Amino acid sequence: MERPRHQGMAKNTYMRWRLPLVCLLWEVAMIVLFGVFVRFSPEADAHWEEEKREMNLTSDIENDFYFRYPSFQDVHVMIFVGFGFLMTFLKRYGFGAVGFNFLLAAFGIQWALLMQGWFHSFKSGKILIGVENLINADFCVGSVCIAFGAILGKTSPIQLLVMTLFQVTLFAVNEYILLNLLHVKDAGGSMTIHTFGAYFGLTVTRILYRPNLEQCKDKQGSVYHSDLFAMIGTLYLWMYWPSFNSAISDHGDAQHRAAINTYCSLAACVLTTMAFSSMLQKKGKLDMVHIQNATLAGGVAVGTSAEMMLTPYGSLIVGFICGIVSTVGYVYLTPFLESRLHIQDTCGIHNLHAMPGLIGGIVGAITAAAATEDVYGKEGFIKAFDFTGAYQTRTPSVQGGFQAAGIVVSLLIAFAGGALVGAILKLPVWGDAAAENCFEDDIYWEVPEDEESEAYHMHNPDKPASP
Amino acid sequence: MERPRHQGMAKNTYMRWRLPLVCLLWEVAMIVLFGVFVRFSPEADAHWEEEKREMNLTSDIENDFYFRYPSFQDVHVMIFVGFGFLMTFLKRYGFGAVGFNFLLAAFGIQWALLMQGWFHSFKSGKILIGVENLINADFCVGSVCIAFGAILGKTSPIQLLVMTLFQVTLFAVNEYILLNLLHVKDAGGSMTIHTFGAYFGLTVTRILYRPNLEQCKDKQGSVYHSDLFAMIGTLYLWMYWPSFNSAISDHGDAQHRAAINTYCSLAACVLTTMAFSSMLQKKGKLDMVHIQNATLAGGVAVGTSAEMMLTPYGSLIVGFICGIVSTVGYVYLTPFLESRLHIQDTCGIHNLHAMPGLIGGIVGAITAAAATEDVYGKEGFIKAFDFTGAYQTRTPSVQGGFQAAGIVVSLLIAFAGGALVGAILKLPVWGDAAAENCFEDDIYWEVPEDEESEAYHMHNPDKPASP
Amino acid sequence: MERPRHQGMAKNTYMRWRLPLVCLLWEVAMIVLFGVFVRFSPEADAHWEEEKREMNLTSDIENDFYFRYPSFQDVHVMIFVGFGFLMTFLKRYGFGAVGFNFLLAAFGIQWALLMQGWFHSFKSGKILIGVENLINADFCVGSVCIAFGAILGKTSPIQLLVMTLFQVTLFAVNEYILLNLLHVKDAGGSMTIHTFGAYFGLTVTRILYRPNLEQCKDKQGSVYHSDLFAMIGTLYLWMYWPSFNSAISDHGDAQHRAAINTYCSLAACVLTTMAFSSMLQKKGKLDMVHIQNATLAGGVAVGTSAEMMLTPYGSLIVGFICGIVSTVGYVYLTPFLESRLHIQDTCGIHNLHAMPGLIGGIVGAITAAAATEDVYGKEGFIKAFDFTGAYQTRTPSVQGGFQAAGIVVSLLIAFAGGALVGAILKLPVWGDAAAENCFEDDIYWEVPEDEESEAYHMHNPDKPASP
Repeated sequence: MERPRHQGMAKNTYMRWRLPLVCLLWEVAMIVLFGVFVRFSPEADAHWEEEKREMNLTSDIENDFYFRYPSFQDVHVMIFVGFGFLMTFLKRYGFGAVGFNFLLAAFGIQWALLMQGWFHSFKSGKILIGVENLINADFCVGSVCIAFGAILGKTSPIQLLVMTLFQVTLFAVNEYILLNLLHVKDAGGSMTIHTFGAYFGLTVTRILYRPNLEQCKDKQGSVYHSDLFAMIGTLYLWMYWPSFNSAISDHGDAQHRAAINTYCSLAACVLTTMAFSSMLQKKGKLDMVHIQNATLAGGVAVGTSAEMMLTPYGSLIVGFICGIVSTVGYVYLTPFLESRLHIQDTCGIHNLHAMPGLIGGIVGAITAAAATEDVYGKEGFIKAFDFTGAYQTRTPSVQGGFQAAGIVVSLLIAFAGGALVGAILKLPVWGDAAAENCFEDDIYWEVPEDEESEAYHMHNPDKPASP
Repeated sequence: MERPRHQGMAKNTYMRWRLPLVCLLWEVAMIVLFGVFVRFSPEADAHWEEEKREMNLTSDIENDFYFRYPSFQDVHVMIFVGFGFLMTFLKRYGFGAVGFNFLLAAFGIQWALLMQGWFHSFKSGKILIGVENLINADFCVGSVCIAFGAILGKTSPIQLLVMTLFQVTLFAVNEYILLNLLHVKDAGGSMTIHTFGAYFGLTVTRILYRPNLEQCKDKQGSVYHSDLFAMIGTLYLWMYWPSFNSAISDHGDAQHRAAINTYCSLAACVLTTMAFSSMLQKKGKLDMVHIQNATLAGGVAVGTSAEMMLTPYGSLIVGFICGIVSTVGYVYLTPFLESRLHIQDTCGIHNLHAMPGLIGGIVGAITAAAATEDVYGKEGFIKAFDFTGAYQTRTPSVQGGFQAAGIVVSLLIAFAGGALVGAILKLPVWGDAAAENCFEDDIYWEVPEDEESEAYHMHNPDKPASP
Repeated sequence: MERPRHQGMAKNTYMRWRLPLVCLLWEVAMIVLFGVFVRFSPEADAHWEEEKREMNLTSDIENDFYFRYPSFQDVHVMIFVGFGFLMTFLKRYGFGAVGFNFLLAAFGIQWALLMQGWFHSFKSGKILIGVENLINADFCVGSVCIAFGAILGKTSPIQLLVMTLFQVTLFAVNEYILLNLLHVKDAGGSMTIHTFGAYFGLTVTRILYRPNLEQCKDKQGSVYHSDLFAMIGTLYLWMYWPSFNSAISDHGDAQHRAAINTYCSLAACVLTTMAFSSMLQKKGKLDMVHIQNATLAGGVAVGTSAEMMLTPYGSLIVGFICGIVSTVGYVYLTPFLESRLHIQDTCGIHNLHAMPGLIGGIVGAITAAAATEDVYGKEGFIKAFDFTGAYQTRTPSVQGGFQAAGIVVSLLIAFAGGALVGAILKLPVWGDAAAENCFEDDIYWEVPEDEESEAYHMHNPDKPASP
C-alpha cells in the first residue's frame, strides 16, 4: 500500500479509508432514519387533492410551493455557490473551499431535515417535509458554512463532517429554544444562523489554535483571479439575501417587506464599506477582502428585523453602521484576535457574521419592543408577532426582552457547543494537516500540474517541485 | 485570400464561409417556419382576458406563467451556464466549451419549439407556444448538450449544428413515442433526455473515433482555474436540478414532490461520490473530475420517478447508488470504453448521463409498477399517471411495463440515430480539426496572447510560438 | 502622510479622503431623504390584511410580490453579476469592473428609488415602495451600468458616483416624460434604458477624450481566463433578459408574452452574431468580443415591443438583424468612432446598446402603430396600450407617433445630459488616472502580488516591478 506523499510530517492526512467510511456509514444512517421518519407534507403528497378540498383551497397556486420555491432556489444558490465561492479567495485552496463546502452542506441538509423535523414537523410519528423544510435545512447548513469560514484551510474533510453533525444538532436545539420556548422572531436568522454559527466557529478555531501558522502566511493570500472567483460568491450572497431574509416569513406583506428592508440595508452597506476600506488604508486604495465580505454585513444585521416594520430608512441606518463595523473589524480586530486571543479566523467571520449578527439580534429586539398597533394595524400586529394562543397577552416590550434573551441563549450554546466540538476535533484521529501544509489543496485533492503552478514553483525556488 | 493558419495539416478547418452560411440560412429557415406556424398560446396571447372568462379563472396568477416561469429560468441557467461551464474544465478549450454550447443551444431551442410544437401543441394549423414549450425546448437541447460532452474538443461548430438539427428531430420523435404512444411518465427526462442523449452521443463519438488522439493527451487535462470554472457549471446544475425535474410536472403536489425527491437524491449522491473518489485513488485524494460530474448522477436518476411517490428515503437510496456507479464508471469504465470499444468520451457522459439515465428509467418503471391507490389516494392515483380516457383501465404493473418499453425505445432510437448522424458527421466537409489540434481553442477562436499562454509556451518549448 | 504611489504623474489619484467623504455624506443624505419620504407600499405594509379586504383579494398569492419577485431577482443578477462580470474581460481591470459596478449600482438604486418614487409613487407626501419599485430602481441603474461600459478603465470611483447621481436624475426625468407625458410603452426599456444610457455614456466619453490612450493599448485586451469571466456576465444577461423585458409588464398575458418574445429574439441573435463574427475575420475565427456582446443585442431590441403582439417570428427577425448590426459595429464602427469622432468606447456600448436600443424604439413604434383590435381582442387592445381615461381615443398610429417621439426625447436628453455631466467630470478634482495608468486596477485597488502578475511583469521588462 502506498503511503501518503508527505511522509516526513508528523500528521497523517491519508484519507483513503477514513473519509469513505464516514461518508458511507453516515449516508446509510440517513437512509435508515429517513425511511423510518420522513414522509411528504400534505402539500407535496399525492393526497393533495383531498387536502385542497379540506382546506377549502380553490387553486393549486395556493400550494406553499408557489409562495416559497423561488426563494428556496435563491437560498440554495447562496449556500452552495455563495459560501462556496466566497471562500475560493485563497490562492491554493479553491478546490477545498468549494468542494468541502459542497460535501458538508450536502450532508448537513439531510441531517438538518431530520433534526429540525423532529422539533418542528413531527406528526404522528413522522416528519412531514415540504419546501419550507428544505429552506430551513439550507438555513441550518448556512450556520455550518459560516463556521467553516473560520477554520478554512486548516481542517480535514472528516473534521468538517464531524463538526457538521454536531453543529446541526446544536443549531436545531438552539432554534427550538428560541422559536418555540422563547417565542422569538428570527426569520432571517441573525441570532440562530449568524450569531450562533459565527461564535460557534470562532470557539472551534480558538481551540484548534495552531501556533506555527505564520509558516504559510504566503498561502493565506489571494491571487488576482482567485479574488474574482470570490466575487462570484459575494455577489450571489448579496443579490439573493433579500430572498434569504424573506424565505420563511409569513405569506404576503411579511415576505414582501423583508425583501425590501434587506435590499435597502445591503445597498447602504456597500457605500460605507467602500468608504472605510479606502479610509483605513494609507494609500487610500480599496481592499478586496473588505468588498468581498463587509458589503454583506447589512444583510446579516437585518436578519431578525427585516420582516418587521423596520422601514426602508431604518434598514439604511443598519446597513450604514454594519459596513463600518465590519470593515473596521477586518482592519483592526482580526489581527488583534489572532495575536492576542489566538483566534485564527481565516475568512474573518467575526466581522461578517458575529458582530453583525449581534447587531441584528439587538435591532430585532428594539424593533419588536417599539412595535405598536398604530404602525402595524390591529390584525397586522397580532400576525407579525404571532401574539395568539398562549402569547395573546404578550406586549411588545416583553417581546423585546425575549428577543434579547434569544441572543444570550444563542451565544451560550455557541460557546459551549463550540468548546465541546473543538475538543472533539482536536483528537488526533481526523487526519488534519500540519501547519506548514495548511491552505493547500494538494493535501486532500488531486491537483492538476499546470502552467500556473509551474510558474508558481519557478518563483518559489525553495519549494520542491511536485513528483 | 488568406489561408487558415495550420497549413501543413490534412484538414481544412477554415470556417469563414461555411459557418456563416449555415448559421444564416438555417436562421432564415427558422424565421420562415415560425412565420408560418408559431403563434402565442392563449395564456400568452392578448386575448387572455377572454380566455380567463371562458376558463372561469378569477385571477391573473392562474396563468401558467406563474406556475412555471421560475423553474423555466432555472432550467435555462442549467442549459447555458450549467452545461456550458461544466465543460470548461479543459485547460485550452474554455471558449469552445461555453461558446459552442451557446451556439448549438440557441439554434436547438428554436428547432425544438417547432419539432415539439408539431407533435404536442399543434392546433388548427398553428403551434401555440407558452412557457411550458420554452421549458420543453430547453429540455430537448439538454440532450444535445449531453451528446456534445462526448465529442467535446473534437468537432467543428458546423458539425455541432448538424448534430443538433438531427438530434432535436430524433428527440422529438422519441419523446412523442414515449409520451403519447406508450403513455409513459418522464417529467425529468431520465429516458427522453439522459438515456437518449447520452447513448446518441456515445454512438456518434464511436463512429468519429480518432486513433491518434493520445497525441494531445496533455490538452485533455485541466488547470487549476479551469477546474474552478467547471465547478460553477456543476453547482448550477446541482442546485437547480430540483427545478429541472419539477418544471413540467402537474401543478401543485407533483411539482412540489418532484423538487423534494430530487433535492434528497442529489444530497446523498454527493456523499457517495466523495467516498468512492477517495477510495478508488491510491493516495486517497479526491478527484475534481468525480466531484464535477458524479455528484449530479442523483439528479439524472430520479428524472422519471421524482414526481411519483418515490419518497425522500427512496430518493436517498437512488442517489446513494448513483454516486457510486458514476464514480466507479469514471475510474474503470471510461478507460475501458476508450481502449477496447474505441469510445472516446471527453466528459464521461457514460458515467454521468447514460448509466444514471438507465437507472432512472428502471427506477421509474418500478415506482410506477408499485403504485397503489392507498399511497396516492384515489384521485391522486389517477392524476399522477393520467389514467383517464383511453388509459382509464391501465394498471400500475402495465404502466411499469410500458415505462420499461420506453427505455428500450429510447436506446434503439439513440443507437440508430447516433449511427446515422455519426456517419453524416464523418463526411470530410464540416471542417473538423486534425487529431493533433483537438482540445485547442486556437483552431476556431481568436485567442488572446497573454501572460498565461506565454508562460504556457515557455514551458512547452516544442510548441511553436504563435505568429 | 504618505503620498500616492505614482508620484511622477501629473494626476493625483489618491482616494483616501475624497472617496470616503463622498460615500459617507451621500449615504447620510439617502438616510435623511428615505426617513422623510420613503414608506412601504400597501402590499408590503403590515396593514396588508386590511388592504386585502378592501381590494377584495381572497389570497396572499395576489400580492404583487408573487407576480414579480422572481423576475426582480433575475434583474438584480443582471445588474450586479451580468454587467459586473461582462466588464471583467480586461486583463487587469477585473476588480474595477466588478467592484465599481457594485459601488455605483448600490448607490444608484437608492437614489433611483427616490427620484422614480417622486415621479411615480408619491402619495400624500410619501413615496410608497414595493417590489415594482425595486425592479424600476434596478432598471434605472442598468442605464448607468451601460454608460459605465463606455468609460470603463478611465475614470475614478468618485467620477462614477457623480455620473450616477446625475444620470439617475436625468433618467427619471426622461422616463417621466416618456411614460407619463407621451404615454409611451417601454417595459423593457429600449428607449429609457438602452438608448438613453448608451448615448449618454458615449457623449460623456467623447468629452473625456484622452489623446494618449493608445499608450496602454496592450492593457485594453483580454487574457484567456478574463474572457471566461466575462462569459459569466454575458450568459446571465442573455438567460435572464426574458425576465428583464417582462418584469414590469402587466400581470398575466403581457408578462408571459414579453418573456417568449425576448427568448426568441435572443436565440436568433446568437446565430447571426456567430455568422458575422466568423465572416468578418480574415481567418474565419470567432471573436470573443462579439460573442460576449453582440449576442445580447436581440434582448435590447425587443425591449419596447416584447410585451406587444410582436409574435415569435417577429422577434426572430429583430434578433436576426441586431446580431448582424451589432457585430458589424464592433468590426467597423468602433474603430471609426475612436479614430474619427474621438469616442473611446471601452466596451463597445454603441454596438450593444445604442444601435439596438434605437432599433428597439423603432420596432416598438411600428408594432404599436400596426396594432389592431383583431389581433389583440377588444379588451386586450385597451389593456395593452392603456387606452383608458385621457387616452381613450388614441389610435394605434398616433401611439406609434408618440413612441417615435419618445426615441427623439431620449436622444436629446442623453446628448444634453451627457455633455453636461461630461463637462463636470472633466474638472480636475475627481482623481482620475493619467492615460498611461488607465485599465489598471493597481491605481485604486490593493492588488495581490501573485505568480500571474510576476509572470506578467517578467514579460513586460519595461514595467518597473512593484515595491
